[in-house]
Amino acid sequence: MSLTRQLGIELPIFQAPMAGVQGSELAVAVSEAGGLGALPCAMLSPEAMTEALQRIRAATTRPLNVNFFCHVPPSPDEARLARWHRALEPYYAEYGLDIGSVPTGAGRRPFDTAACDALEPFRPEVVSFHFGLPDAALLERVKAWGARVLSSATTVEEARWLEAHGADAVIAQGLEAGGHRGMFLSDDVTTQVGTFALLPQVVKAVSVPVIAAGGIADARCVAAALALGASAVQVGTAFLCCPEATTSALHRRALQSEAACHTALTNLYSGRPARGIVTRLMHELGPLSDVAPAFPLATSAIAPLRSAAEAAGSSDFSPLWAGQNASACREAPAAEVVRSLAAGLR
Amino acid sequence: MSLTRQLGIELPIFQAPMAGVQGSELAVAVSEAGGLGALPCAMLSPEAMTEALQRIRAATTRPLNVNFFCHVPPSPDEARLARWHRALEPYYAEYGLDIGSVPTGAGRRPFDTAACDALEPFRPEVVSFHFGLPDAALLERVKAWGARVLSSATTVEEARWLEAHGADAVIAQGLEAGGHRGMFLSDDVTTQVGTFALLPQVVKAVSVPVIAAGGIADARCVAAALALGASAVQVGTAFLCCPEATTSALHRRALQSEAACHTALTNLYSGRPARGIVTRLMHELGPLSDVAPAFPLATSAIAPLRSAAEAAGSSDFSPLWAGQNASACREAPAAEVVRSLAAGLR
Repeated sequence: MSLTRQLGIELPIFQAPMAGVQGSELAVAVSEAGGLGALPCAMLSPEAMTEALQRIRAATTRPLNVNFFCHVPPSPDEARLARWHRALEPYYAEYGLDIGSVPTGAGRRPFDTAACDALEPFRPEVVSFHFGLPDAALLERVKAWGARVLSSATTVEEARWLEAHGADAVIAQGLEAGGHRGMFLSDDVTTQVGTFALLPQVVKAVSVPVIAAGGIADARCVAAALALGASAVQVGTAFLCCPEATTSALHRRALQSEAACHTALTNLYSGRPARGIVTRLMHELGPLSDVAPAFPLATSAIAPLRSAAEAAGSSDFSPLWAGQNASACREAPAAEVVRSLAAGLR
Repeated sequence: MSLTRQLGIELPIFQAPMAGVQGSELAVAVSEAGGLGALPCAMLSPEAMTEALQRIRAATTRPLNVNFFCHVPPSPDEARLARWHRALEPYYAEYGLDIGSVPTGAGRRPFDTAACDALEPFRPEVVSFHFGLPDAALLERVKAWGARVLSSATTVEEARWLEAHGADAVIAQGLEAGGHRGMFLSDDVTTQVGTFALLPQVVKAVSVPVIAAGGIADARCVAAALALGASAVQVGTAFLCCPEATTSALHRRALQSEAACHTALTNLYSGRPARGIVTRLMHELGPLSDVAPAFPLATSAIAPLRSAAEAAGSSDFSPLWAGQNASACREAPAAEVVRSLAAGLR
């Protein structure tokens, strides 16, 4: 049975869950257009997630993908945090902020019992994970209500691991993709592979359906991904300028400028490598830096700086998540983006 | 007119020039099979090049691509070389070698008048460059005998530059590609883009034909590259285990092992970033290291170490050039590889 049939969707076009730049509205629009809309839950409390799911279920009866992170929260490391704060202190001073008042808190929670409890009443058709899979008991609960489970592989080895541990389909996340690398078996970024090389090798390595992600911007890219053996595509960046996304005006402007030609993997915004447009912060500290604390602890000290800079019209400290092909970003309704991508299907 | 017509070849399948692992035999085999064979000339003296060209012209009347580097040789920097030698000294000691006896000499020469003089009598149909283009006078000479000029672009900006400076076609070299990155407008590796994202953006940006390179291993990849707008594909890694290549036994073994799953960009073998299978040297010094001298000065101190290690059956210090998809490497004649790639053409 084809993946679209299994999932009950019309088109093999998945909207990538993008925490921080979208909520329920984009998910609804994509699902209503025949693709698979997604709600990123990594930065939502169970209460906020419940509200968003209520809105989505009220707006559409179509299938939905909910996305969670599966990281192991790091042990506190005061020395490392202090070093991070020292590195940011000059920027804090620039905006008259006090580095001593940085809020604590992780910002992103892994999928846990509380999230699963809040999720269960909605029985989402697809539950997807980043950074591996949750433990077997939680995965069992998710599958027990009939959800199909997806997760991202950034190497052939990770794809095999996901299949062996119960993923119903694997997202081959090429190096071009915006946002967090889903890598979980290694933290060595040299292991990361471009979509063109990763996708056909993952297709050969596993027997579950493979969803292509990374660099897929338009109809031609969809056709190419299918030629490489993908059962579906997952697209993020091309939706970032849709009215249904919550992308900031600064971020939208950057995506539609020449600046979008230069993205890099950076760990400065969260602690884990993620792809975004190069900012002043990335330029000055180096996009991948030892001074950033473990994921997700980098975020809390960036937040006040980002707010102050954005209030002054600057994206110097904003995570401008984007993949390596932002050329399709435009202020068009998500349904139109879905339709234009679907032109690449046979 | 199509690119194949312009170049007088049957199939839009280019063999990537690969210095150090092939000579005339592979070029002849690919051209005879209907593709475009290539002779890498960066490491050949004018005399050696003349000999190779005589062999090729005697063996086939089909079009040929000759490839040169266009780097500016670096000024000597004794302090930097000394630091490099200190970094390698422990390895030299391991093999009972004397770091004081390292031969000098660059190993790789840029395209110059002497090379052009030696080349002219053979009037090769295609002349391709890596690291930009030679100066206008030399380029004029090459074009005057009717050669089509190609060069590699690793970013949209480089593609535009090459078109503006006289390239007749542009090779979009995705990050997956094995061997040296053709980058020449920046030395920042974060600017480098995967094939899936680079190719369609280059196709949009220039009006000359675009040749896709990086991660193209089999018929599916050829179909995908065409779907993304390529006029032809350039394939390297898939030819490395052909009997017509001069790839060492150690290199062949690595390409057909699990080790080939992990390549990285490294500057340790030449001074410029190039993709190869991760070796002990890359692992221990870090694949991209400040201790390596400017291109191409790293090579001469690696050579004795490499020879000694290879004689002992070890590839610890060998540049095991490979792209991110070595899955198609097999001991099959080049003509068979060309035929299997051609199955991806419409």
